Parts: sequence; structure tokens; C-alpha cells
Amino acid sequence: MTITFALMSKPSLPSGTRDFGPLAALRRKYIFQTIERVFQLHGFQPIETPAMENLSTLTGKYGDEGDQLIYKILNSADYLAKADAAALAGKDSKKLLPSIAEKALRYDLTVPFARFVVMNRNNLSMPFRRYQIQPVWRADRPQKGRYREFYQCDVDIIGSTSMANEAELIQVFGDVFSALNMEVDILMNHRGLLEGFFQEACRQAKMEATEKGFAQFTVILDKLDKIGFDGVITALKENGFDRPFIAVISPVIEQPKRSAEYLNELQGELGHNDIAAKALKEIKQVYSLVGNTLTSSSNLVLDLSLARGLSYYTGCIFEVKTREGGNSICGGGRYDNLTGIFGMDGLSGVGISFGADRIYDYLEQHDLFPKQSESSTQVIFCCFEEEGLSQAVAWAHGLRQQGIAAEVYPGTPKIGKQLDYANARNIPFAVLIGSNELTTGALTVKNLISGEQSTVKSEDLGTWLVGNTR
Amino acid sequence: MTITFALMSKPSLPSGTRDFGPLAALRRKYIFQTIERVFQLHGFQPIETPAMENLSTLTGKYGDEGDQLIYKILNSADYLAKADAAALAGKDSKKLLPSIAEKALRYDLTVPFARFVVMNRNNLSMPFRRYQIQPVWRADRPQKGRYREFYQCDVDIIGSTSMANEAELIQVFGDVFSALNMEVDILMNHRGLLEGFFQEACRQAKMEATEKGFAQFTVILDKLDKIGFDGVITALKENGFDRPFIAVISPVIEQPKRSAEYLNELQGELGHNDIAAKALKEIKQVYSLVGNTLTSSSNLVLDLSLARGLSYYTGCIFEVKTREGGNSICGGGRYDNLTGIFGMDGLSGVGISFGADRIYDYLEQHDLFPKQSESSTQVIFCCFEEEGLSQAVAWAHGLRQQGIAAEVYPGTPKIGKQLDYANARNIPFAVLIGSNELTTGALTVKNLISGEQSTVKSEDLGTWLVGNTR
Repeated sequence: MTITFALMSKPSLPSGTRDFGPLAALRRKYIFQTIERVFQLHGFQPIETPAMENLSTLTGKYGDEGDQLIYKILNSADYLAKADAAALAGKDSKKLLPSIAEKALRYDLTVPFARFVVMNRNNLSMPFRRYQIQPVWRADRPQKGRYREFYQCDVDIIGSTSMANEAELIQVFGDVFSALNMEVDILMNHRGLLEGFFQEACRQAKMEATEKGFAQFTVILDKLDKIGFDGVITALKENGFDRPFIAVISPVIEQPKRSAEYLNELQGELGHNDIAAKALKEIKQVYSLVGNTLTSSSNLVLDLSLARGLSYYTGCIFEVKTREGGNSICGGGRYDNLTGIFGMDGLSGVGISFGADRIYDYLEQHDLFPKQSESSTQVIFCCFEEEGLSQAVAWAHGLRQQGIAAEVYPGTPKIGKQLDYANARNIPFAVLIGSNELTTGALTVKNLISGEQSTVKSEDLGTWLVGNTR
Repeated sequence: MTITFALMSKPSLPSGTRDFGPLAALRRKYIFQTIERVFQLHGFQPIETPAMENLSTLTGKYGDEGDQLIYKILNSADYLAKADAAALAGKDSKKLLPSIAEKALRYDLTVPFARFVVMNRNNLSMPFRRYQIQPVWRADRPQKGRYREFYQCDVDIIGSTSMANEAELIQVFGDVFSALNMEVDILMNHRGLLEGFFQEACRQAKMEATEKGFAQFTVILDKLDKIGFDGVITALKENGFDRPFIAVISPVIEQPKRSAEYLNELQGELGHNDIAAKALKEIKQVYSLVGNTLTSSSNLVLDLSLARGLSYYTGCIFEVKTREGGNSICGGGRYDNLTGIFGMDGLSGVGISFGADRIYDYLEQHDLFPKQSESSTQVIFCCFEEEGLSQAVAWAHGLRQQGIAAEVYPGTPKIGKQLDYANARNIPFAVLIGSNELTTGALTVKNLISGEQSTVKSEDLGTWLVGNTR
């Protein structure tokens, strides 16, 4: 008695999404567990929010372009019953939307976190230190390294303005990349320093220092990596920033990466500007607090051209790049008003986010995944006859009680076939069970890498395996 | 320079979804990690599939009612541009659907797994043993214990018909509930046994044994827990199963739970029916293979009334209930044709699934969450003055290198406020740092549970904390 389903051939995945088979899934677990372990050693607490948020929670938080990239979930059942009749008649997708889709998939972890804080404000002890490792969805055009479903690993401290938080997050960067054996530069800048430069340049160029102008300036500066010194100069001129302006900010684009000593020089140049002076004081505090706690795998680098696109950053900003350069693998910074979007003002915080996909690609390219993370089963029992299976099941059970991952080949095809399976799975040891082994309890253990065979008493098998495994 | 967003007050969650704050998130991690650890000890390999599947992959796999409960994702941008004009004009939600929604959220992990197997059939070594722990979404009416987003923890072995697989999954049940300190009954039945009973009853009642009749019979039987013996008899009569039919199956409803010895009695009654005979042989094999490998926390119980709603099961079927009864917390069974829905025939397998939410509720009600799983930070550094922070950051870093979770209170409000935070977070130890401690390196460690104070040299702090922590 079976049910026949409508046949469908060649199933496929939605564009921009991925399956992860066993090897990739184990490697991803290694990355997430390493990051999570560091978060926990720093006393961060996990939270989880649902994949689906009310559409109204997300709309308007990411700009018009972002709103387009949010995946909307169609209302259930007869969704057209309550649809906006005029929008329907006019085939107006945008206007129809709120009447047929109440829910959406989260676009990042920041807005859901802000919503969580507002809804739970009476139960959270401040400062609140949370981490969150969950997927997000964006209807972006898929391309190499850009997916429509991907994980974010966020860690934030809210309710405290102390620079000890910035220092701690820099340590988190250092500890994570040290644990992953990756050599990185932790780039730091301060929005106040950028603003100080901008105001000083405007003053000397006798331009008005407008918000719009500052936004234009930071957007252009952010492209330095891609378009280079000349490209930035050209772009600045095209946007009406003339020679006196450029003269002031040229040190920023000529040699953006500086050591901590350069802060004293900046103090001379910009110290008279209140915003810059505060920024310089904060950066110095951060350097002093971090001290010598970074391992050799991480450098803390002052990068005066670092701007970060998102306008909600207000203090220190961060990016991490591998020593080879390329795209950043982490980002973050301080914001003054996380929850203002939900009507709860004055909550400052600082947070950073790890890009798991880019970390994955780097570890793969550099063969840095530990081999232990890639196989699980240590030993497989292979029986010549059905009679062996019960005993094999019992022996495997005993090994698992000792913490050793063990399998029993289900059934008794030819031993060659069983060993083919074991080899395909990279299982290092096989115990071959025939009638002799059942009678005597003296087991034949085959090392599937060297081909070597050993005889081990069944009661000693666990100890023997532990001793013979790297 | 800040950006003003449109204000929105009182954010909320979509009905049927949940946030998990730190305590709940840590407890959920404990459950998932315990389950995953057992899966790995049994050599199961993880896979992950995307939350979004093509709608055509999911449609028609869960029946008409299931199709209604699938969350559909609206196409991006101007989704009405390619909408079915006739359906739009007729306000026909169902007909319009395929033209405005190509994607949907996964409804379970089984259909995505089948799709994964079909798409990767050339790279998988059979038997393929996979586990998958991911959320699923259903547009069900929310009620107590039923959510619209919830996790499934599935483990399956495909490409093998050996009863060693059934035995192994029973061991997985046993090992998981032993690790969680839960006392459970593992209920087992066999679809072939139900079918044998049905055919024998039809034969004696001179009724035709139809597929439809068998489906009716199992649906009624499945309600035994809820409607009791009399309810089942009434329902059977109402559906045209008369006295001679009921006489044959009455042992099943009078005393459904049996020990393994009862199998011999059934052999006498049903052994002449081929389907029942095969089922009896398989159940006996499973009992023999499991042997004594279940710990005392799990009983394996033959439950002749167990039917499992899903029609795709074809062999042994399982449910797990706590000794207190109530809803089942796990289910599963053998199926003959996982991938037939995607045009790839003949792949048999057996799988089980753990219900994390019900396990959570039970552990919470019975106070079975280990206390270690509920706090992370072991020690917090509290400074009287700003000058102490750098040294505290360095000390905390040193402790983390030793694997001890440590925090530095960010900033220097009154010590009382800092300790309030530590208490709210259940941090067991606080190190109080004033100018004296900075000079001498002799640290004052306060036990925040007993109030006791100790003096510990800074270089001994790690060892001291390990020694003074349970």
C-alpha cells in the first residue's frame, strides 16, 4: 500500500541558496563553534529571534533599496480576500504589498536585536552582552561569494559607553582569528575623526560643512581600496570638493594606514576641533586598554580611510581583512541609538559581525581546516555473517559509552563492499567479525590507512583505539 | 549627524513565533548539543539545506491540507508584472499563486532531504547516514506547544534494508534520553503487523480489504490514546467495521502494549499472513539486535495500536513518550521510497525525529537542566577607578587563554552597581580592583554566592578559580 505522488523530475535549488553536504557542514560547524567558544569565554550570552518578523518591523530600516531586498511572506489561505482592491486593479505591486503580506524574512540580525531589546527592556540587566548566530535572507542578485541565504555572527554590548567595550571586541577579533590560525589586520577608525577631517577641510576651503557633504565624502573615501588615490581625488573634484579641501584630507588618502604614534600628530592638526578631539581621546583609550593582549596573528591598525557605509555608526568603526587584503571578513562599530527606530531612545552600544562565508573560503584556500573536524566515525564493525551483528551492535554501544564514535555496517554484503564504504567515509579502523571472533572475543582490527592488521581483545578495544588514534 | 527613521511604537512578534532570551537559548543549545553528540557518536553526518525551497519542490508532498500550511515567499520587485491575469481578475488566490511566488519555506526536513539525495546521488556513499537539525515553518493555527517556527532534529539511514538500522536508531533514542536524564518508553510497531491484523479481520468479517479501509482503520486506531477503547469501538462501527472485524482486532485495542514474548502468540494468530509474518520476523530481529544495549532510562515496548499518521511508512514505526505519558516527543519509521517523489525509485530508509520543544518543556518542568548549562561567565573584574581597566583587560585575557570565561565590567560606576550586574548574571566570582591591587598584584576575590572574600595572587587566579568551581 503506497501513495503515488505526482512525479517531478530534476529538482533544483532556488538561485543564490546552497545545500551543505557532510564535509562542508562539518567545516561550517568548526567555524561557528570556534567563534561561539570565544564569545562565551568573553561572557556573551546567546539569544535567538525568529526567521519571520512582521513586515512593519523591517520596512524603512534599510533604505528604499533595502526594502526591495526583503523577502516578503504571502499571507496564508485566501490572501486575495483582503487585498487592496485599487492596488489590485492597478497592478501596483508596491501598494498591494501590505494587504497581502504581513510577514517577512529577517534581513540582518541588528533590527531583530533592537526589537528584542525594546520588547524585553524590563528583563535585561544592562550592560547587555549578547551574541547571535543565525541566517539572514536578502533578495540580492546572486554572484560569486554573495548568497541569498547566509549566516551572520553578531556580538554586541549595549547600555555602556565605556571604551572597555571597544577594547573587548578587538580582543574577540584577536581570539577568534588566533583560534582559526588566520593572520589578519584589525582596521580601526572613528566617525568623529572623519567628521573632524571633513569639518577642518570645509573650514579651510570656506565650504559649508553639511550632512549631505559629509555623506558624499565618506562614500567616496570608502572606495579608496577599489579606485585608488587618483580615483578618490577625481571623484572628490567631480562632487565639488576643490583643491583647498583636498589638501587637508590628502594625508588620509595618501597613507591611510597608520600606527598608534600618528595619533599625536593628528592631535596637533585636529585637536582644536571638538569632535575630532573626542574621537582621538577615545581611540587612544582603546589602544591603551587593548595593550598587549593581541596575539601575533592580529595587528591593530589605524585606517583613516575606513568609513563603513552604514550611517548609524557614531564612534569607533572596525573592519577585519586578511593580510592578503581583499574584501573585509568582519565589520562593526559603535552606534548611539540602536532602539530609536522603535521609539526607545538613548541606548548606545558597540557591536561586530563575522562573515562566515568569507572565513570559510579563506580556510579552504589555505588548507587550514583541522583534519579532526572532518571525520567523525573512528571505527566500523564489519560482519561476515548475520550472527555477528548482535554482538557488533553491543560492542559498538560499549565504545560509544567511552566516547568513541562507532558504526556497525548494516547487513552483511561482501566484506570488500563494506570496506569500500568505510574508505569512502574516511573511517580509520575496521573490526572484522567472523565466527572465530565471536567465539574467542579476539578481534581483528584493520587500519584502513596503513592496511596493518592487529589482534585486540574485545574488552581492550576502546583503550586500544584511543592509544592508536592521533 | 544622525539619520531619523520613521518612528514605530510597540514592536511585536508574528503570532506563533518566539524569541529565546539567554537562559532559554542556552537550554536549547544544551538539548541540541546532547542530541548532536549522540548522532556523531553513531557516525551520522550532518547536512544543511536552505530555508527556501522552490515552491514546486514542496507542493503536493504533504496533501492538500499541508499545501495550505506551506509559507510562500512573494517574488521580488514587481511581482505583479508576470502575474496570471485571469487569476488576478478573478481574485483566485490559489490559481494566482504559482505566478507570483516561486519559493517557499521548508515544511519539514524529509522532502528537502529527498531532494538533496536526488541532486547528489552520484557523490553519496550508500548506506548514507545523515542528521539535520534545522527549523521548519508551518502556517498552522498556533496553540499551546504548537508553533509556526520550530526545530526538527532528524536522523536517517538510507540505502539499506537491514534491521541493524532500526536497532541503531533505537539505541540513538536510548543514548539521547539517557544523556538527558529522561525516563521514556520507546514504542515500536510495524505497518505490516497492522496490515496483517486488518487483512485477517476483513477475511473473518468477509469484507474486502481495501487501501481506503486500511487508512480509515489506522486513523481510528491512532486515536486510542485520546478516545479510549469505547471510543475506538464506536468509531469503527460508525465506519462500517462490524462485530466479526472488531473481534479480531480487539486484542490490539484492549491491551496494545506488550512485551517481546507476545510476538510468539501473534505468530500463531497471524503467521499464516505473509505480510504479518515478514513484520513479525523483522520485529524479532530488531529485539535481538538491540539486546541489552538500552540503559534503564529507556524501555522498548511493543505497541500494537501505534499507527503513525503518515502514509509513507512501510515497516517498523516508532514513537517515544515519557513515562508520564502525554504527547509523543519523537517519531519515525521505515519508508520504502523516499526519493520516488522526485523520480528516483527504490531507495529505502529508516529515520527518526526528535521534538525539541516537548523535550524542553519536560526538562524544565522536572528541573533537569544542568546548572552548568545556564551560566557562562565564571569571573568578573570590577574596577574602582579607570586606571584599573587596562590591567583588568589583561588579566581577563589571561584567564580566557586558560579556558575560563571572564568579563571586565565596562567602566567604573559604583562597585555596588557593578556587583548588582554580576548577581543578575549569576556570575559566581568578582575580582575587585583598587589601587592597592594594582600595586601589589594581590587580588581580592569575592564569592558572590557565599559572600566570602579571598586574597589570591594575580598569577594564581586561574588555578584558584578552577579549584574553587564545582
